[in-house]
Amino acid sequence: MTKAPTVYDVAERAGVSIATVSRVLRTPDAVRPATRDRVLDAVTDLGYVPSGSARGLAERRTGVLGLYFPGFDAVEGIPPLDVLADGQAGPYTVVREDGPRDDGRASMLFQDEVLRGAELEAWRRGFVLMVGVGRGDPATATVRDMAGRVDGLVVLAGSVADPMLERLAERVPVVVLAGPRHGDRHDHVTVSNTEGMAALTRHVLARTGGRAPVYLAGPDDSPDGAQRWEGFCAALADAGCPLDDVVVRHGDFTRSSGRRVGERLIAEGLPAALMSSNDQMALGVLDALHAAGVDVPGDLVVTGFDGIDAGALSTPSLTTVRQPMRELGRAAIQVLARRLDAPGAAPMSVRLPVEVVLRGSA
Amino acid sequence: MTKAPTVYDVAERAGVSIATVSRVLRTPDAVRPATRDRVLDAVTDLGYVPSGSARGLAERRTGVLGLYFPGFDAVEGIPPLDVLADGQAGPYTVVREDGPRDDGRASMLFQDEVLRGAELEAWRRGFVLMVGVGRGDPATATVRDMAGRVDGLVVLAGSVADPMLERLAERVPVVVLAGPRHGDRHDHVTVSNTEGMAALTRHVLARTGGRAPVYLAGPDDSPDGAQRWEGFCAALADAGCPLDDVVVRHGDFTRSSGRRVGERLIAEGLPAALMSSNDQMALGVLDALHAAGVDVPGDLVVTGFDGIDAGALSTPSLTTVRQPMRELGRAAIQVLARRLDAPGAAPMSVRLPVEVVLRGSA
Repeated sequence: MTKAPTVYDVAERAGVSIATVSRVLRTPDAVRPATRDRVLDAVTDLGYVPSGSARGLAERRTGVLGLYFPGFDAVEGIPPLDVLADGQAGPYTVVREDGPRDDGRASMLFQDEVLRGAELEAWRRGFVLMVGVGRGDPATATVRDMAGRVDGLVVLAGSVADPMLERLAERVPVVVLAGPRHGDRHDHVTVSNTEGMAALTRHVLARTGGRAPVYLAGPDDSPDGAQRWEGFCAALADAGCPLDDVVVRHGDFTRSSGRRVGERLIAEGLPAALMSSNDQMALGVLDALHAAGVDVPGDLVVTGFDGIDAGALSTPSLTTVRQPMRELGRAAIQVLARRLDAPGAAPMSVRLPVEVVLRGSA
Repeated sequence: MTKAPTVYDVAERAGVSIATVSRVLRTPDAVRPATRDRVLDAVTDLGYVPSGSARGLAERRTGVLGLYFPGFDAVEGIPPLDVLADGQAGPYTVVREDGPRDDGRASMLFQDEVLRGAELEAWRRGFVLMVGVGRGDPATATVRDMAGRVDGLVVLAGSVADPMLERLAERVPVVVLAGPRHGDRHDHVTVSNTEGMAALTRHVLARTGGRAPVYLAGPDDSPDGAQRWEGFCAALADAGCPLDDVVVRHGDFTRSSGRRVGERLIAEGLPAALMSSNDQMALGVLDALHAAGVDVPGDLVVTGFDGIDAGALSTPSLTTVRQPMRELGRAAIQVLARRLDAPGAAPMSVRLPVEVVLRGSA
């Protein structure tokens, strides 16, 4: 590689100061057109590429926003792919398809949709988005590293321990995505988990004559899960249905854990209703019930939570609560951008509405 | 904000050199456990966040890979969202749904799926992904800026002018995504556009008794579009069908441009077949034909290219060529990672196979 041209080379060629070069690259509209064109011509002729690292130090603004997720550990069955090792396959195959494929893509959907929304909104506002995903221990190394490279960070609730979150927030503005607010002073963006689950529970109780549903919970550390459970309990209390009657099963938010719960329901006797704290587990329950010939919703009703596309295509289609995942990502970037403009403003908390989606299963 | 702790503070508290602190943060397994724990405790106690900018200059490796798209200009109807201005909506609404929604998300699908694959593969390899999307003029400012902040770049073919691409490649390794190779020395990752379109064209000619299809092309500057047209022409030539008989219409890859072409077909008389160079335009054609009560495939056959999910749900479902979009993103990151390990190796070119998907429309 040849030696890269520097800002000094550009300034010399255009006959301007390096401050002017910098101004043209940052705020071209603030520079006289003739000067601007001369500088941009020099940039193009020399192939000058500003060093982001050097500029970050000098200007303390990177134009980059960060989005941090804890990991893809819940992704089931990432297919192997090694494009450099594979033998050369034929250029095409022919297949006949009679319906939509289930290619397992639902399992990444929450993060995907949030990412898609964040990416769109960052683009609309002229930011580049840095996406970091933690892996294993020390899980916080990635997010700590990101904090040194961005103007602000969006982190998924619960993905970073509170003391580290406080430290990150001393460096850059932090927006916490999903989950409840718990006494911290960060900006929050969340959805109406509690109210949505309460409304869905009232619907289920009306279908079952008030008989207590089995509740399928996710991992204990899910902040959204805690809010959904709260909404479920509130609706039971309103209906005078004792919480003691409720059987709680646990899964890990994956479809396969839902399948195991479904098989156990069949073995132990069907309840009037099964309410799952997410869609994937509910779809796993439907898989098991369908395989055993159980009639849903005739023998029992089943519900989920999230509103992933796969729920519209299952047999029967899944009654659920749809959270606006893409809008959640957009909202997080909007709040972060506002925070950059107004660093001293009071903490913001945005809660997006949800939809209770009635389909075939309940 | 309080003064951020420095690496010197961490070193002092842990009683080690700053080189050791750096080693613990980069390669913890290479440091004695007792030392490592002492340093990590100091990092946590002080809330130390390394500065990516300073470290980037010192080490010349960022741990960040970049993915650059030209823009979202083809996205139709980004819904308005302003979470800070909206009045407070109710926490939930109830809707009844009898089938999958068409919420327009198909229009972002190619970039989304590539991004999803790239993000997954970057995570698997321990990289953070920086996603940049150009907007307007000067469209290259974003990618030039990214090149200063990453270890390597993936750029969509045609999104950066060749001279700028050469300059970027002098700074960091560049992988070109999609499109044909044209004499450059970059690494390329693409799909079998030509062979896939030729196979689909042979299928259509068999259905129509060899009568020439109308071809619906996209913008002239689409590198994938050029390869698809080439495959179409090759199949016609093989079948002895003169290219002079072919009517070519142009759209801009959006569904609405396909609708306009469909309406024009109806007004001017239906051909035996309409082959579109992408799915979205083909779906627009189907919209227009469906609205006019035209029988597809009875009155004419219609095909697309890409394999977006919406094509499985249209009426009738769309016969198309599915390109492995997510695998394309994963492959680009794999090639980039290989390049970082082997900077001197010959340029790599990876071409992924496609599927010809036969559904209702042809």
